[in-house]
Amino acid sequence: MSDSITKPRPISGFPEWLPAEQAAQDHWISIIREVFTSYGFAHIETPAVELTEVLSAKGVEQKEIYALTRLAAEDPEENRYSLHFDLTVPFARYVALHQGQLTFPFKRYQIQKVWRGERPAQGRFREFYQCDIDIVGIDKLPIDYDAEMLDAMGSLFTRLGIGDIVFRVNHRKLLDGFYANLGIKDDLRPAILTEVDKLEKIGRDGVQASLSSLGVDAQAIDRILNFASSTQEGHILSDHLKSFGIDDPTFNEGIDELCSIFNQVVPKDGIKLLWDGSITRGLNYYTGAVFETQLVGTESLGSICSGGRYDDLCGRFSKTRLPGVGISLGLSRLLSHLMGTESLDTLKRPSPTQIVMMGMDASQRKRDMTIAGKLRGNGWNVELLPAGKLKKGMSLANKRGAPYVIIPNEDGSFAWKDMIEGKQEDLDEASLLAKSPE
Amino acid sequence: MSDSITKPRPISGFPEWLPAEQAAQDHWISIIREVFTSYGFAHIETPAVELTEVLSAKGVEQKEIYALTRLAAEDPEENRYSLHFDLTVPFARYVALHQGQLTFPFKRYQIQKVWRGERPAQGRFREFYQCDIDIVGIDKLPIDYDAEMLDAMGSLFTRLGIGDIVFRVNHRKLLDGFYANLGIKDDLRPAILTEVDKLEKIGRDGVQASLSSLGVDAQAIDRILNFASSTQEGHILSDHLKSFGIDDPTFNEGIDELCSIFNQVVPKDGIKLLWDGSITRGLNYYTGAVFETQLVGTESLGSICSGGRYDDLCGRFSKTRLPGVGISLGLSRLLSHLMGTESLDTLKRPSPTQIVMMGMDASQRKRDMTIAGKLRGNGWNVELLPAGKLKKGMSLANKRGAPYVIIPNEDGSFAWKDMIEGKQEDLDEASLLAKSPE
Repeated sequence: MSDSITKPRPISGFPEWLPAEQAAQDHWISIIREVFTSYGFAHIETPAVELTEVLSAKGVEQKEIYALTRLAAEDPEENRYSLHFDLTVPFARYVALHQGQLTFPFKRYQIQKVWRGERPAQGRFREFYQCDIDIVGIDKLPIDYDAEMLDAMGSLFTRLGIGDIVFRVNHRKLLDGFYANLGIKDDLRPAILTEVDKLEKIGRDGVQASLSSLGVDAQAIDRILNFASSTQEGHILSDHLKSFGIDDPTFNEGIDELCSIFNQVVPKDGIKLLWDGSITRGLNYYTGAVFETQLVGTESLGSICSGGRYDDLCGRFSKTRLPGVGISLGLSRLLSHLMGTESLDTLKRPSPTQIVMMGMDASQRKRDMTIAGKLRGNGWNVELLPAGKLKKGMSLANKRGAPYVIIPNEDGSFAWKDMIEGKQEDLDEASLLAKSPE
Repeated sequence: MSDSITKPRPISGFPEWLPAEQAAQDHWISIIREVFTSYGFAHIETPAVELTEVLSAKGVEQKEIYALTRLAAEDPEENRYSLHFDLTVPFARYVALHQGQLTFPFKRYQIQKVWRGERPAQGRFREFYQCDIDIVGIDKLPIDYDAEMLDAMGSLFTRLGIGDIVFRVNHRKLLDGFYANLGIKDDLRPAILTEVDKLEKIGRDGVQASLSSLGVDAQAIDRILNFASSTQEGHILSDHLKSFGIDDPTFNEGIDELCSIFNQVVPKDGIKLLWDGSITRGLNYYTGAVFETQLVGTESLGSICSGGRYDDLCGRFSKTRLPGVGISLGLSRLLSHLMGTESLDTLKRPSPTQIVMMGMDASQRKRDMTIAGKLRGNGWNVELLPAGKLKKGMSLANKRGAPYVIIPNEDGSFAWKDMIEGKQEDLDEASLLAKSPE
């Protein structure tokens, strides 16, 4: 082991936390689990690795997929396996593979890391956590579950307490009906949607120019941009959408479904539900409602949580039609953005230790170990120190952020120090063991 | 998305669970976290990916390391990054990198997947979970922490309730002193230890033959095999070790340290602490106590939890000497071995749902959503069904394993069905909302 010393350095795009920040992330993840579980979503975890052929479908940026090779061996399986870049494709593969053993509608949550071979940049990671919920049915899935997505994510954001949230919702049927009504051909629509999706980034003039170069006439461009620039809250949504004067059955279906979703979601403080004509979710496979989410005041972060309704989860893997609805929270991105702020700072803990117990007398070690064990059984997190200097131990207790310290006295009693209140009392063993965390 | 249909298949060596088994694994992981936390170990998580140069040190099987390449791009970073194959090397890199921001002794736990490009076989995985605890100090670390390792893992096994456990403990100083006393040269020892490590697999005769071919004389072989075949519990350990008649200062240090460890560990039902002369931990970097762990009755599984004391964690990365002690539980292997057994079966849950609430009347959707939300706030996991047939809903409630069902009545009251007791009562809204999970 006497290699020369290589000072280690972090790898750009592969973040890691110090223990205090990790404690904040763990707290978030426990809330996310709790909220998802409270809606009856079952937890699943898929391997980080899938067959490359499963991951590389049409429309996937192959450049961003990390393939595996064994480092120093003739590897007949080179590039056969790759790391997943999202949780949707593995979920589709999981459902298709285990279909006969799952109960439908199947509600699952997944909180895992995903990997993307992107060029690293501020806030763009190559390894990061996503948190997904999806509900899939066989052949059909009631619209009520679309509302449940927004309700569940609304509950989550309320619990996380990170500020005001706007769910920006649109519907593919509105878009389809709208473009059909304009007389724009089907094969031009993806290109148009891609351009409209850039409205926030490049502005109205930019989109106008690119639509024009796609051959869309000026009047149609005007209507497209008006629609895409329009937003409306739920209570008069139906009237607002009808005011666009689109006489198209698909458009009207879109209105009905969207209003049904908006009517079901229970209002929550600080959570706004907004129809937004600019939301398209690009070229994705969505067929109904589409969702994006803005954290008010940090719009530059982009959508922190996106998803929508799809017609068929497993088309590539199974003949059974499995419609569903899902939404995905970009945990690492949001968390690292908020890490310096107050809402996260209060969750940081230098260590989980609640009691530092001093080891004053080495000959009493077994007694001390026994007492520490009993306190742990009472629910305390106890760090027992080896026999040593009291001053050094107190300094460590401070660095650990421990709210209590136990100092065994020579007479067999124990000094119980409350580090926050600055109080101290002497307790016999029975009274010490009667202490339990609030 | 109209690619042809590819029926998916599992990848050998990359296990995944159905939701019921996942629930059992999650329960285990929550116990593991709780026990580690109760000893004051802070949680850290390192990226799955490290620089390849960090992972490939002397003695590492490079064949087993998975390197990353971007699938479809000129990749100037090809094979520069690799997936970690254990949690010790990333931990060493982490401590060296963040040394100035950590409090020592640094106690951390890590529960993460690791990847090894092994040929897959029964019970041998290519992606699996490890759970590690380590304590490292600067320049020195008291022997008390060696005892804490065994105490913590003992508490964990007690909580997991998987049966009787034997910690098999040996000490490198005993081995060093023993071999020095035999007059065996330093450079021959690694080869001898490697052979002795095979004692359980190939038996006494096999080891005898291979030691003989290494040039060890018959009398020494006899003493080596007697020592390696000897075991002893704590209460007369010192006398037993002295009875080997080894007059060597290092051997005597080993006796003292081992007895100090054995004396500190608090006895626990079903957990045996045994000195075992055959334990060497092969060519690993340990310098003091070494640990292996046997689940009684399933010895064929090998050691389920191993570790030991080392002189310097970060030798490759830092000039500061950081001695420590650590132990690692092979979670996936143990869990998959036990998955069919009773201790795991009782932890399986088809879903987390505790209450299935029927949606009887679509026009009452918002009321039902509100009630479901309040019950969730009370701590229940509630799955609210869309309006539909009662019979279908009851069948789903059964499949979910939900202990309670709520059926909204037409008069505004709610039928509360206890699915286990087979009882039913009608409740008004206030009484319904007063229900809370035990």
